[in-house]
Amino acid sequence: MPGVRDKVAIIGMGCTKFDEHWDKDVKDLIVEACYEAFEDAGIEPKDIQAAWWSTVVSGFLGRSLAYPLKLDYIPITRIENRCASGHDAFINACYAVACGAFDLVLVCGAEKCKDVGIAIPAVIDPAEPYSSRVDTRFPPPAAFAQLAIRYFHHYGIPIEEGRKILAKIAVKNHYNGSLNPKAQFQRRITVEDVLKAPIVAYPLGLYDCCGITDGAAAAIITRADLAKNYRDDYVLVKGAGMSVGMYQGEIQDDWSLTYIEENVRASRMAYKEAGIENPRKQLDLAIVHDCFTITELVIYEDFGFSPRGKAPEDVEAGTFELKGELPVNTDGGLKCFGHPIGASGLRMIYEAYKQLQGKAGQRQVEIRNQLALTHTLGGTPVDSNTAAIAIVGLRGA
Amino acid sequence: MPGVRDKVAIIGMGCTKFDEHWDKDVKDLIVEACYEAFEDAGIEPKDIQAAWWSTVVSGFLGRSLAYPLKLDYIPITRIENRCASGHDAFINACYAVACGAFDLVLVCGAEKCKDVGIAIPAVIDPAEPYSSRVDTRFPPPAAFAQLAIRYFHHYGIPIEEGRKILAKIAVKNHYNGSLNPKAQFQRRITVEDVLKAPIVAYPLGLYDCCGITDGAAAAIITRADLAKNYRDDYVLVKGAGMSVGMYQGEIQDDWSLTYIEENVRASRMAYKEAGIENPRKQLDLAIVHDCFTITELVIYEDFGFSPRGKAPEDVEAGTFELKGELPVNTDGGLKCFGHPIGASGLRMIYEAYKQLQGKAGQRQVEIRNQLALTHTLGGTPVDSNTAAIAIVGLRGA
Repeated sequence: MPGVRDKVAIIGMGCTKFDEHWDKDVKDLIVEACYEAFEDAGIEPKDIQAAWWSTVVSGFLGRSLAYPLKLDYIPITRIENRCASGHDAFINACYAVACGAFDLVLVCGAEKCKDVGIAIPAVIDPAEPYSSRVDTRFPPPAAFAQLAIRYFHHYGIPIEEGRKILAKIAVKNHYNGSLNPKAQFQRRITVEDVLKAPIVAYPLGLYDCCGITDGAAAAIITRADLAKNYRDDYVLVKGAGMSVGMYQGEIQDDWSLTYIEENVRASRMAYKEAGIENPRKQLDLAIVHDCFTITELVIYEDFGFSPRGKAPEDVEAGTFELKGELPVNTDGGLKCFGHPIGASGLRMIYEAYKQLQGKAGQRQVEIRNQLALTHTLGGTPVDSNTAAIAIVGLRGA
Repeated sequence: MPGVRDKVAIIGMGCTKFDEHWDKDVKDLIVEACYEAFEDAGIEPKDIQAAWWSTVVSGFLGRSLAYPLKLDYIPITRIENRCASGHDAFINACYAVACGAFDLVLVCGAEKCKDVGIAIPAVIDPAEPYSSRVDTRFPPPAAFAQLAIRYFHHYGIPIEEGRKILAKIAVKNHYNGSLNPKAQFQRRITVEDVLKAPIVAYPLGLYDCCGITDGAAAAIITRADLAKNYRDDYVLVKGAGMSVGMYQGEIQDDWSLTYIEENVRASRMAYKEAGIENPRKQLDLAIVHDCFTITELVIYEDFGFSPRGKAPEDVEAGTFELKGELPVNTDGGLKCFGHPIGASGLRMIYEAYKQLQGKAGQRQVEIRNQLALTHTLGGTPVDSNTAAIAIVGLRGA
């Protein structure tokens, strides 16, 4: 299947600061992110032929995007797939451009979580209202805490030792975020800070958890053969992958709860399309779904960055730090940048885009192979997930 | 823009009876509709490479579709765009197939509205929580009642005369539904029944309003060049159109509130792609969003089936009846078939598919040009809308 590889290019992106924006509503955030993207691409809103709109709680119907941008009767698809919404929207927009339906489209994700929370849709979620299956849904920190406990148990890591490993991931992401004026949190933290913080769901403490916040991010995409009309340093879509579980893990006695199969499947799908055989060597950076520090640890292994059980050693070695072999979450990640659900996927692509263009300022990493991976995960490890990935690269990559 | 015309084929479809399914949950409905589609296409669930899932209140995340069907870690996009969700999902699936990303995909829409209602998301809809714009949102019957009153006023039709015209649309749709065992309501009604029914929002009475109900519908689509491997009477996608408003009507002094511009734009987009210049002559049938009888009346004009202001005359002449010049809502429409929000778009395509194949039984219409239009509308006339259209046809059309 040919897919989207090298058929679609990103020619403009925008991203607001992610923060508690009590003084702005979602329309303000949409305008800010999209106009940065329009300006970056050198286009105007009237040039947009169709749009994809990603949000979980901040506006049903395409009109929630159309209204603030004054988009004039164009097609707008609204996609919601929990935390994977942004990537899902981005990938669908790529399909539409790749098949020739449109030449120039907008993808925008935005969320005002601080006003309405994100719990309401979960409470009314009637997905399985009368299911006979054991209901393992409970708050995300508790679900991901199970992943941590099982991981430590499986690999014989004392819990307090494990907590130190996770703390180093939080320290890394806060350090990266401190170099990024658009990240929500600007303060560097220490391993001691993480370990001394209040426990949210043992063994995860306050600094092991990302924060739900407000923000928006946007991308302008076009057909690859048209991209050079807009800019020289456009970024190509190299591969996309998505995998949705149906609770297979729960019915497998031998599932160790030390990995997330949806991550494995989505990454292999995207690697195949992008022609990646050794992600650790071939990727210049990865921006992944670190909703909790344990999630990022497991992702290192799910994505083949580290062999199974060896991610802690790589953390100790600084492999995923800004100057390490494969920098991960160079912008601060969900942990430090913040997590406005429907916007996060686009925020990740924004960082990959800026890094590949060499425009990431103080947090710029070395670009050797011109390839970056971005990833979001919707769901919890004890439930089932939507894992979605977009791999992007400079032309010639 | 080449779009999807003749690139994508429907090779299987399924649809449950739409009803108050108190004894089934959404998973039962999904299984029933999808297995009818699998059987119709001669495939098995394991053959499906990716899926699109359309629902408003019956399951967030792709897993709500993956779980009942035991789809094994494939990509599943979840699309929600209110009443236009089903078409939005179908069109996006077409883009993915047309660009070559997948050979064989599923689109499913399902809803269990009777258990949870649809009011909850509307209440928490934070799309415009602090908008300075006048809030014209109120219950759909009241909003569409304004459309009726204004239409009658604009064309000088006495209200009680107008009510009789609308009644004839209800009578037609109930008659068509009585020939359709899958339609929710099976009883034929008279103009007198409609006029004597309790008023819901004047001038709209009980029989002018469609019912929110439970149901599911599904389509299997593939690349057009692969379709003949599955069946001879496959149905091609001929054109797609979508248009999202941003409240332009509200700020125009000269907007008469007798038409819905999003309908006009979406239909012209789809006509252009499908090569349709005279829809009344070229279409064999149309399945449109008759959430209220007045909606169907206005759609006749928005879609160019009748000249402006002349739809009442065409209603009187029986133009849109089963044996009329252009049969509309041959399956009973939303009015009689029922309206499980996320499923309705697929239900409409199901009817067009069966009619084109000559498999519509007692309600079969004459197929001359081998082209059918399907349409959903999300939003209300005094608000802003998402209008979405798919035109389908037999090969050679």
